[in-house]
Amino acid sequence: MSDNSALELAKRLIACPSITPATGIVFDEMEAMLQPLGFEVSRFIAGDRPEDEGLGGAVENLFAIRRGPEGARHFAFAGHLDVVPPGEGWGSDPFVPKVKGDLLHGRGAVDMKGSIAAFVSTLHSLPSDLGTISLIITGDEEGPARFGTVALMDLMAERGITPDLCLVGEPTSVNQLGDMMKIGRRGSVNMWITVNGTQGHVAYPHLADNPITKLGTILSEIDALQLDEGTDWFQPSNIEFTDLSVGNPAHNVIPAKAEGRLSIRFNDQHSGDSLSGLVREIVERNGGELNPIISGEPFLTPPGELSGLIGEAITEVTGVEPELSTTGGTSDARFLSKIVPVVEFGLCNATMHKLDEAVAVDDLDQLAKIYALVVKRALS
Amino acid sequence: MSDNSALELAKRLIACPSITPATGIVFDEMEAMLQPLGFEVSRFIAGDRPEDEGLGGAVENLFAIRRGPEGARHFAFAGHLDVVPPGEGWGSDPFVPKVKGDLLHGRGAVDMKGSIAAFVSTLHSLPSDLGTISLIITGDEEGPARFGTVALMDLMAERGITPDLCLVGEPTSVNQLGDMMKIGRRGSVNMWITVNGTQGHVAYPHLADNPITKLGTILSEIDALQLDEGTDWFQPSNIEFTDLSVGNPAHNVIPAKAEGRLSIRFNDQHSGDSLSGLVREIVERNGGELNPIISGEPFLTPPGELSGLIGEAITEVTGVEPELSTTGGTSDARFLSKIVPVVEFGLCNATMHKLDEAVAVDDLDQLAKIYALVVKRALS
Ligand SMILES: [Zn+2]
Ligand SMILES: [Zn+2]
Repeated sequence: MSDNSALELAKRLIACPSITPATGIVFDEMEAMLQPLGFEVSRFIAGDRPEDEGLGGAVENLFAIRRGPEGARHFAFAGHLDVVPPGEGWGSDPFVPKVKGDLLHGRGAVDMKGSIAAFVSTLHSLPSDLGTISLIITGDEEGPARFGTVALMDLMAERGITPDLCLVGEPTSVNQLGDMMKIGRRGSVNMWITVNGTQGHVAYPHLADNPITKLGTILSEIDALQLDEGTDWFQPSNIEFTDLSVGNPAHNVIPAKAEGRLSIRFNDQHSGDSLSGLVREIVERNGGELNPIISGEPFLTPPGELSGLIGEAITEVTGVEPELSTTGGTSDARFLSKIVPVVEFGLCNATMHKLDEAVAVDDLDQLAKIYALVVKRALS
Repeated sequence: MSDNSALELAKRLIACPSITPATGIVFDEMEAMLQPLGFEVSRFIAGDRPEDEGLGGAVENLFAIRRGPEGARHFAFAGHLDVVPPGEGWGSDPFVPKVKGDLLHGRGAVDMKGSIAAFVSTLHSLPSDLGTISLIITGDEEGPARFGTVALMDLMAERGITPDLCLVGEPTSVNQLGDMMKIGRRGSVNMWITVNGTQGHVAYPHLADNPITKLGTILSEIDALQLDEGTDWFQPSNIEFTDLSVGNPAHNVIPAKAEGRLSIRFNDQHSGDSLSGLVREIVERNGGELNPIISGEPFLTPPGELSGLIGEAITEVTGVEPELSTTGGTSDARFLSKIVPVVEFGLCNATMHKLDEAVAVDDLDQLAKIYALVVKRALS
């Protein structure tokens, strides 16, 4: 009889190198784990058209579903099999899983092959007729994410599949397993400002048009913006200028061009487009041009059934009261939140993206127990 | 009998290469021209101490004086024998004077060996007992000017010599000889602003301190300054930002430092120090540091005897009515104006500092005639 512990499954996934964007062997392994559990597994490559080149490369995605009785609820687990590059200087081979003391070492141990393994292990402990369960697993969450979870959502839309609840297994715990889950994330947009003027000599300013003066006005008008005062679940949206550039070595010359760059982290009172419009009005009124690139829209799943279920399960298994947070960077939950209530909860993130990434073996087992309680209660 | 025409003397000076800072042969030539005219010639090297290194090198200066009767007025002519480097691409050797058609070609033809030659030529046509005449000739006007005219003024102070009127032979004419003289010049100061902050991640702005925000405030406060509204003889003082620099490639990082540079051209309502104080208050109140470098203080010789004499002479010789201007860059008149009424008047400046610098032979003769009228009337 095979060992379906979270530890054993995590080792099998870590042993398949899968630097982002991931394809191939790690998905073979994943499929091999799911088929014995009665899942119908669909795999496909996205982003392999010539016009996709340079946008994140070819990405493999896997959608697995095991349907429950007619009218049953549908619980989805979402995650990614790609990992960030290991870098140099590991104590052991990052793609050879190794237990040292209480820890399992390997790239992806916490972000997030460990939590995928915990979820699959959980499935072995649950009755198979509970309800509908699906796994939404991409090979590109760590990269541009253009052909990952969004492509999986396209597939689900084509098939008319919409989960009722979705848990994303990102490593959200901070100091101990269960101390934090994410019920939302801020959005993020970077904006490039270019102001063109007319070069000239400082002694003859009437023949020139100084772009720095205009950029200065833009800077102070943007600085005076109060986007919001925060909400019950989000801190206030915030604008930071991150660069200024003119590059004029000549002391006596009014330059022809001035550039600035800013970054906004924003809550669900705004969208990337609404903020681009707000800033563009200021920039264009002062003779500049704006080029925004939206990295992610904010999302919020207000505290409710899903966060309640997860919180109770965490406290039952670990004794910890989790904090409901919206801090940190972006994750694929920003996409999934458009179709389903989504909460992120997983392992401790202290070593994610770092050398010697490692997970406590105990945490893997406890996470599997928490996931089991959540799925069972969500579907009954 | 030797040819003491302005053309001939100009050729002799152009034939002595004298890229700034100038020493040696060009001063030998100058001395040789002045001694037959009864001038007492003093030459000295300044800026040759070890601590002067990097501040403009060793500079030769020449002070020549021919004293008139006891109590006679003293007319001074000031100029420079150094020239800016010729650059590549001349039609003929820049240090071999060459007449082509109506033009004398050579580096320094208009700026300002030509006008020195015109003045010396003039001396041959004037009675030698008119009054006191001096020549204040430096080898560094085109460079830092730290050891040039200021050193000559030190020498004059030591000897208790103060002219009553001073004409600087800079090329002030624009489209035709006599269309412009300078009765003043604006001052010039460049200022470097550095704002230090605390680097951080844009997602955690409370842990950082963004120096760009402060620089932006500084920029707009400085932009709001109205230094003055101009005077009868000066246009309004003007501040131009000339550079901004952060150099932060990371989109998500609040940088540690932001820098700006500005340039102020200012009239005689201000000094370099008063403006530095004004800007420093704004910069320091917003957490920045200011580093000003004053290139020149403004000066004004209000229209009066000297500009009147020059204007009349110009109109008599050329038929042109000169404009009294305070525009353009700085010149050594900014130093001399501290001890004597000073006006600048000389050749057409179209080719100064350019390839194939050239002067119309006719202009040399006419300039000598104008200078002759001015000196004669000033001293009688
Ligand atoms: Zn992750
Ligand atoms: Zn000059």
